[in-house]
Amino acid sequence: MKQMIGRASIRLEKDVYIRSSASIVGKKEGEGPFGSLFDMVGEDDLFGCNTWEEAESTLQKDAVSLALGKAGLKPEEISFLFAGDLLGQSIATSFGISSFGIPMFGVYGACSTCGETLALGTMAISGEHAERVVCVTSSHFASAEKEFRFPLEYGNQRPLSAHWTVTGSGAFVLDKERAEDARAKISGITVGKIVDYGLKDSMNMGACMAPAAASTIQQHFQDFGTGPEEYDKIITGDLGRVGQTVLIDLLKERGYDIGSRHMDCGIEIYDPNTQDPHAGGSGCGCSAVTLSAYILRRLEEKNWKRVLFLPTGALLSKTSFNEGKSVPGIAHALVIEGL
Amino acid sequence: MKQMIGRASIRLEKDVYIRSSASIVGKKEGEGPFGSLFDMVGEDDLFGCNTWEEAESTLQKDAVSLALGKAGLKPEEISFLFAGDLLGQSIATSFGISSFGIPMFGVYGACSTCGETLALGTMAISGEHAERVVCVTSSHFASAEKEFRFPLEYGNQRPLSAHWTVTGSGAFVLDKERAEDARAKISGITVGKIVDYGLKDSMNMGACMAPAAASTIQQHFQDFGTGPEEYDKIITGDLGRVGQTVLIDLLKERGYDIGSRHMDCGIEIYDPNTQDPHAGGSGCGCSAVTLSAYILRRLEEKNWKRVLFLPTGALLSKTSFNEGKSVPGIAHALVIEGL
Repeated sequence: MKQMIGRASIRLEKDVYIRSSASIVGKKEGEGPFGSLFDMVGEDDLFGCNTWEEAESTLQKDAVSLALGKAGLKPEEISFLFAGDLLGQSIATSFGISSFGIPMFGVYGACSTCGETLALGTMAISGEHAERVVCVTSSHFASAEKEFRFPLEYGNQRPLSAHWTVTGSGAFVLDKERAEDARAKISGITVGKIVDYGLKDSMNMGACMAPAAASTIQQHFQDFGTGPEEYDKIITGDLGRVGQTVLIDLLKERGYDIGSRHMDCGIEIYDPNTQDPHAGGSGCGCSAVTLSAYILRRLEEKNWKRVLFLPTGALLSKTSFNEGKSVPGIAHALVIEGL
Repeated sequence: MKQMIGRASIRLEKDVYIRSSASIVGKKEGEGPFGSLFDMVGEDDLFGCNTWEEAESTLQKDAVSLALGKAGLKPEEISFLFAGDLLGQSIATSFGISSFGIPMFGVYGACSTCGETLALGTMAISGEHAERVVCVTSSHFASAEKEFRFPLEYGNQRPLSAHWTVTGSGAFVLDKERAEDARAKISGITVGKIVDYGLKDSMNMGACMAPAAASTIQQHFQDFGTGPEEYDKIITGDLGRVGQTVLIDLLKERGYDIGSRHMDCGIEIYDPNTQDPHAGGSGCGCSAVTLSAYILRRLEEKNWKRVLFLPTGALLSKTSFNEGKSVPGIAHALVIEGL
């Protein structure tokens, strides 16, 4: 095939452009290091809704509206929507984006979903099946705790290896053409596979996801014939402090030293000294809002030229956890370059 | 774009081939009208596993193995896997197909997921991003009842408008090239959007999904400039008896009479006189196993030349239902032709 390289990668013949993007977050995220960079910060995490799930749906809807608005586009000008979230049956998405009336593909890759939507959206444009697509993902601390762990009212204690799910949504308009105000371009994709090291601790998802991140990064280097030095940053979604050390060690064993270039959205999004996030932030909103608010800005400001962006997902549910299953991981990588 | 037509459709420049497929079902499905056509019928619905979820994972794994085996292909020869199921966080998929080591995209579209995987898989090949892909979906009566309704032990009564979730998995190998023993070809796609008529009855999902099916069929006719007469059959996934009448009425109002050509996998898969399925079968296994075992066979035997195949999905979760939300629908359509 003209664009497929190696086992799991696509080198685009023609780059796909990130034309616009938007990020909306909750109060805690607004108080973190990227606080001033987000497009909107909620005053309280219900965002005027009656339930956490409705609040998360509102985040998605507003993020898509804002991203479209920035690009001056109407929903009718978008070919397809690629969307997902963490909740069972992806209900934040189902009730968030239906009013746009855009033909849509629902996607599930746990916290890797942001990478998955961007990969599929890029492929739709690169394969000449779409002019423009929107990719959106979200997560919400309270809906995720309810979905995966304990009701908030229970007030459970969390081990230091646990993550804090980011309340936020990031939306991206991908475009075949380079508009004047385009933010960046996507030039390559490496699609992840499910990697299961047999870890079962749902309060240590960084360790569960790190082997998948290592697998995708190694595959990426092999497929593209490159190494860490090609990238100003190698950015994982939400490995957190525990997962970061596991990832760096795993890749060192395989001959790649990414220590000086690695960044993790989950580590950066909260201040560890004042915000008590434990291992770091997580959720498919985490990588999405960090990409929109921070990473694309660094590329626009020419601080960085090229990054490898790979949201990481932990594949578990309440049911699989209660049945004693392990927590496999998956990570999808995108090469994102400044213009 | 060279392949995009109308608002939501893709007419392929070069057809994509269904090279092989496999269907595995439970005992009840094996006793139904298509019983002798399925590749494998389980003796009991645990399939040798300890939990319903593990059983469903086994179905997916075995369906993929069988489809690959029929085509004489190894997992390494498959570029991407598109997979999904109905369970929260798609755990049947996560634990079903990881051992193949194929780069994978997790997909969620409720019972429309079979159509969504086939659409995305077709686009990956047609866009020259893959040589060969596998698309697989599953559902399981017992895991679905637990996920969406009541534990089986509770012995709840079901209204006549309720569906019986099909225990089964269907897998399809899509190929860029036409192998000698290829089963059929895919020549067009219409991507569905979420349609919400505000219905809230999770025991009448046929009525909830019918508006989405009507929307996709109408959009398909508009985009392709065709009508019902172009198809030997217009085949929905799992509208059941209630949904079928709603669909036919809705399309009649819009000027399309599909009454004589409509078929629903959910209606056909069980014998209403002896199997007591109420409205009909449902689940993302329902359309998948019917496509593999029955529809492709009718095309191979030249009984039919061209069908419009559109699995239909009801977008709800326990949580959305308990919070009083409606049940929106979505349906993705594929034009499938005999060779």
